[in-house]
Amino acid sequence: MAVNLAQPGELYPISGIRLASASAGIRYQGRDDLVLVELDETSSVAAVFTKNKFCAAPVILARKNLRETSPRYLLINAGNANAGTGQPGMEAAFKTTQRVSELMGVSPNQVLPFSTGVIGMVIDVTKISQALPCLKSALSEQGWLDAARAIMTTDTVPKAASEKLVIHGRTVHVTGISKGSGMIQPNMATMLAYVGTDLTIDQHTLHSMLIDTTEQTFNAITVDSDTSTNDACVLIATGSSTIDYNDLNADERSRYLEALKTVMQKLAHAIVRDGEGATKFVEVSIESALNSRQAKAIAFSVANSPLVKTALSASDPNWGRIMAAAGKCEDENLDLSRASLLINNVHVMTAGEIDHDYTEQAGKMAVAGDEIKIVIQINRGQACHTVWTTDLTHDYITINADYRS
Amino acid sequence: MAVNLAQPGELYPISGIRLASASAGIRYQGRDDLVLVELDETSSVAAVFTKNKFCAAPVILARKNLRETSPRYLLINAGNANAGTGQPGMEAAFKTTQRVSELMGVSPNQVLPFSTGVIGMVIDVTKISQALPCLKSALSEQGWLDAARAIMTTDTVPKAASEKLVIHGRTVHVTGISKGSGMIQPNMATMLAYVGTDLTIDQHTLHSMLIDTTEQTFNAITVDSDTSTNDACVLIATGSSTIDYNDLNADERSRYLEALKTVMQKLAHAIVRDGEGATKFVEVSIESALNSRQAKAIAFSVANSPLVKTALSASDPNWGRIMAAAGKCEDENLDLSRASLLINNVHVMTAGEIDHDYTEQAGKMAVAGDEIKIVIQINRGQACHTVWTTDLTHDYITINADYRS
Repeated sequence: MAVNLAQPGELYPISGIRLASASAGIRYQGRDDLVLVELDETSSVAAVFTKNKFCAAPVILARKNLRETSPRYLLINAGNANAGTGQPGMEAAFKTTQRVSELMGVSPNQVLPFSTGVIGMVIDVTKISQALPCLKSALSEQGWLDAARAIMTTDTVPKAASEKLVIHGRTVHVTGISKGSGMIQPNMATMLAYVGTDLTIDQHTLHSMLIDTTEQTFNAITVDSDTSTNDACVLIATGSSTIDYNDLNADERSRYLEALKTVMQKLAHAIVRDGEGATKFVEVSIESALNSRQAKAIAFSVANSPLVKTALSASDPNWGRIMAAAGKCEDENLDLSRASLLINNVHVMTAGEIDHDYTEQAGKMAVAGDEIKIVIQINRGQACHTVWTTDLTHDYITINADYRS
Repeated sequence: MAVNLAQPGELYPISGIRLASASAGIRYQGRDDLVLVELDETSSVAAVFTKNKFCAAPVILARKNLRETSPRYLLINAGNANAGTGQPGMEAAFKTTQRVSELMGVSPNQVLPFSTGVIGMVIDVTKISQALPCLKSALSEQGWLDAARAIMTTDTVPKAASEKLVIHGRTVHVTGISKGSGMIQPNMATMLAYVGTDLTIDQHTLHSMLIDTTEQTFNAITVDSDTSTNDACVLIATGSSTIDYNDLNADERSRYLEALKTVMQKLAHAIVRDGEGATKFVEVSIESALNSRQAKAIAFSVANSPLVKTALSASDPNWGRIMAAAGKCEDENLDLSRASLLINNVHVMTAGEIDHDYTEQAGKMAVAGDEIKIVIQINRGQACHTVWTTDLTHDYITINADYRS
């Protein structure tokens, strides 16, 4: 069902990051569901987590461990979110980090745990322990694609992206994987995503780089407006290329950030394209708003409107619903009286009124395909914001009436 | 498809309010779609309108007219919302009030226009003009139920409610009608609703009474989180009973307000029970929150969560989604670590952890029926808020992929 989402292309290994996947039988049978990631000691690690106040035990523990130490291992499982599990869930999450620490000879807080899957069941520590020796022996720099497969839940396509660029005559790389297709409106964080690079980047710079890039990628997508309990995005700089970000000039930095953003945007778009029940990939761009807060609010209001999304699923150019969704934002300074609306470059409204050349036929052709760009020009200021979403279909209902998340 | 929603019972006429319905052929054939309401000169009128910034021409005009004069006529049509129609739509709305003013011998601004239906088409003034003489001759105090039928769009059941009570040995009445089943999350206003009473209530008191009651009734419902461009709620006190609200004692006032709230709550619940595709009627109550803003935000976050609503449609007691929806609220002071959750009186979570006696079987039985009460006790303060909503079903998708609103 995914919308124009191909299998991942070539993934460049990142020197200093080794991954292994195994089947621990946590929930799924006959597929991998557990991933161990090993990081060289030279690595810097930055991470952002869900802001959901009902967040999962592994999120609480990973956040704490990251504050205390420089992580050496990530342990990621699919099938059980270990969320809503109270103190027993916290103890189970801690025990999984303890098992990794014993096997690998690091301290428990150098292990970051991540879980995704069903809410409300404590994770089975024994199943995870039993799979660890097998994971240890399988660690490899080639393990990215298998790891992308192992962390899938309702995903139908594994999500991975890779970029390389030449700096100072040497090739540096950015490679990442992600998962997610429902309970998707990441808030200042994201679904599970892991991005590695071989550049040397200090911890402080890496963190602000992650915050900036996340805002334009993972925090700019929504499938169903529901923010997960387990979202996390991790950015790892192994430093193995010996090129230091701080030594780059402005042009080199900008090229590097572009490559990083490209990987993260591909991973974020892949989540939307594989959104539960999706048949359309929809970009909503708000332009010339009074301020960026207003632009973002309007963009999400349109992207989350069930009426807009059901109309798009039926290829109905229902522009009235789009403008009504924009208008429902609670913003005293919002003024739509000069607003213009374009759907796939067809002018629907111009300066607050229906465009003189607009025809229903042109509107229908604009929304007939599976890639739709909605642009609303508020014509009141300079701010803009873009978000990406899907349509709302019968399959979304079917998937979520059946699946216990 | 409506959930436990019977046809309206006996409707008490309100002395001083006469209604007439007719078929103007605006969009529907073979049914009434136009209503004229005549108010005695002694009447006070209060109204609240949608806060949608893309609001319709009749909303702008009715709001203006209400500020200027004491209204004598309401003109309500179904089938065309006259929204998103710019200056031509404003002119058409004004012309309809002009036609009523000519026929009835009042000034145009004593007529309040209301429209509901398709967005984006200018209303046909001629069709409305032609139906007016027929409406004039049909005005009757018995016209409430026919009017409730004439203002329906995707509604499947007409919505009307009536209460009477004895004050100072005389019977006073409250009667109201409403419509709506999709694009429903009224914001400080409501879908179309008209409530009349024969008590004498001054304009200022009437307005604050409407604001207070709306907050607990029409502003506490959501079907799909989409706020309409045309919502309006009108409260009319004809004064024909000669009992003045200002002369009542505290007990009498409280009994009267209770009757008013009962009528408005029945009308609001009727809209939810007739929500597009609804198979469940769901009450979400937040208790012991830090403040009322927090309570309201959590209530709407749960009531609008697509994942909660799809789970309920499948009778799945998916409490993890309910708590995740509560947790996604952007409120720095929200703390769910002591929260308790009850579904139809079954204790699911107690003080932040799964209740020791909770079983999946008990949860399944709790959500098996079509009336579901969700209570979340935050256990942090004194504030509470209740909202009402529906589940999210295949029929919602089908209705909104087909219907051009």
